[in-house]
Amino acid sequence: MKKHNFSAGPSILAPEVFEKASAALLDFEGTGLSVVEISHRSPEFVNIIERARALALEIAGLDDSYTALYLQGGASMQFLMVPYNLLERKAAYIDTGTWANKAQKEAALFGEAEVIASTKAEGYKHIPKNVNVPTDVDYLHITTNNTIYGTEYHALPECKVPLVADMSSDIFSRPLDYTQFSLIYAGSQKNLGASGSTLVIVKKDILGKVSRKLPSMMDYQLHIKSDSMYNTPSTFAVYVNYLVLEWLKAQGGLEAIGKRNAKKAALLYSEIDRNPLTVGYADRADRSLMNVTFNLTDEHTKDLFDSLWKEAGISGIKGHRSVGGYRASIYNAMPIESVQLLVEVLKEFERRA
Amino acid sequence: MKKHNFSAGPSILAPEVFEKASAALLDFEGTGLSVVEISHRSPEFVNIIERARALALEIAGLDDSYTALYLQGGASMQFLMVPYNLLERKAAYIDTGTWANKAQKEAALFGEAEVIASTKAEGYKHIPKNVNVPTDVDYLHITTNNTIYGTEYHALPECKVPLVADMSSDIFSRPLDYTQFSLIYAGSQKNLGASGSTLVIVKKDILGKVSRKLPSMMDYQLHIKSDSMYNTPSTFAVYVNYLVLEWLKAQGGLEAIGKRNAKKAALLYSEIDRNPLTVGYADRADRSLMNVTFNLTDEHTKDLFDSLWKEAGISGIKGHRSVGGYRASIYNAMPIESVQLLVEVLKEFERRA
Repeated sequence: MKKHNFSAGPSILAPEVFEKASAALLDFEGTGLSVVEISHRSPEFVNIIERARALALEIAGLDDSYTALYLQGGASMQFLMVPYNLLERKAAYIDTGTWANKAQKEAALFGEAEVIASTKAEGYKHIPKNVNVPTDVDYLHITTNNTIYGTEYHALPECKVPLVADMSSDIFSRPLDYTQFSLIYAGSQKNLGASGSTLVIVKKDILGKVSRKLPSMMDYQLHIKSDSMYNTPSTFAVYVNYLVLEWLKAQGGLEAIGKRNAKKAALLYSEIDRNPLTVGYADRADRSLMNVTFNLTDEHTKDLFDSLWKEAGISGIKGHRSVGGYRASIYNAMPIESVQLLVEVLKEFERRA
Repeated sequence: MKKHNFSAGPSILAPEVFEKASAALLDFEGTGLSVVEISHRSPEFVNIIERARALALEIAGLDDSYTALYLQGGASMQFLMVPYNLLERKAAYIDTGTWANKAQKEAALFGEAEVIASTKAEGYKHIPKNVNVPTDVDYLHITTNNTIYGTEYHALPECKVPLVADMSSDIFSRPLDYTQFSLIYAGSQKNLGASGSTLVIVKKDILGKVSRKLPSMMDYQLHIKSDSMYNTPSTFAVYVNYLVLEWLKAQGGLEAIGKRNAKKAALLYSEIDRNPLTVGYADRADRSLMNVTFNLTDEHTKDLFDSLWKEAGISGIKGHRSVGGYRASIYNAMPIESVQLLVEVLKEFERRA
């Protein structure tokens, strides 16, 4: 039976990405070698990482005042690298959930990390509006999509300081003016590929302004100087990332994927709103197009619902352990047919409850 | 034509590892999902990482006073994490090459990092002997195998302080009393698998003794508390690591692999010593069993030699860009038949020169 993977990450990728990666493990582009046994300094791999870096900027619509890096350690490592490189005195953080909160806590080890807005008291059900961003801070940090709660920024805060964003769970999911950001980062295990690589896109002129000495692996400028090869990259994860970006480009880029994602999300949210047995978690205005969070209106129906989606071949829709309920992650690679199936299951659930 | 991959890393793995990893990209252990799309918190993946961590300790012959972690960022990230966690006042470093030197430089950002011995002036051709290790340091750091120069410790320095070792290029290659170490680390792209994961084995009681505040991702204790899942691990790299450790165990563990590695190295070194056209780089007493470095006695024969090994399907034997010459890396997964082929090529080279 076909599986429908709604996992929050690591998560579904396009079938052709799995197929190409599987084949490359036995013979990488006719070299007679596996993609994981070739040197990261071989012309074949250098070509892959350079194409992936260029594709990331191309898809984002950014010029060469920016650069794209493939680092390791996921978004959690960026919680630390961002302040290491950018926080001289004071930074502003908007707290929209667990990950935003963790990012702020790491920054506080390096300087003042002021929380200028938080929706924690309201269960992180919405994104703060009309936030007054101070002008005397080194940067403002936001989390554009909050995987656990299912909220997403649909308008960015007005901001005169460099804007830094954790985009791990909604990068490249919709058209967006990426020039508004000075630095974005994203763990790759959602819209970009397999876990183990982190895409960092940074506007070069914001770097080199802090007075502290940076350890080598923490230093964006050193990674830039080394063409993202200061040390051995996570070669397979970078390769999968490259395959995903090629796939995304072939789909028609952000314009096309954005339309598809909006359609998928509308389909699922309208059923959740219509169905008397389900209720959305996040405020409607701030709903995520990537992570659809909902609860049952009657907990006694839980066993029935769980058995129905399992029977249908659906996996990964349990809510995050910190909030419970359900979360259907419908990233770029999720086909609309799988979302339709989940809608059918919800309708069947209503009939049978 | 079959390829013979002598690359220094990423490097050759056993054929069955490539085959299993390739199959798991399409269907991981009958789940109907790719190994890279399953949640790192799924029972299936938790089982893999737990088995890999247990196997690492089992193969090393270590009890539960140690723990094994899978982190990201390669050995270069450990150059930084080691002093973050262990360097309160002063540490001792032995400089046996580029990587040892880099490790020491990062430590110097966190405290005094004294170089107590160095073979830099002699081109790193040997390992320092009879080093007097101070007793007032927090730890001694060594690099057990020096990939670039082809040297390896065949006896460890006598040492009353915790011994920390970068074993990236010779971990699990020979029987060794691992209880002599308090912390070892190894990037996985040589004897452990694909790049993108780093094995850290640490004796738990050496931790928690520094006074500085540690960023979360730098904190070994936090990673231990989180069962090596503080954030999303590099799941595919961990999976490959697991396959490699299962393979190593099936080969007979360190005793068996050590014999095989010694035989391979003896075969190649004896030809290099015999052949009037080649000369070994490292001092005989300190030769590496993993990376066999050599030069040509007459540079005019270079084109002939290069054409011969290429015709034979050999790849990856060019020396590191910082030293030149040749380097044949003969890690655990390298079959003796490939080493024999290289020996045949060297003999043919002599006949034809």
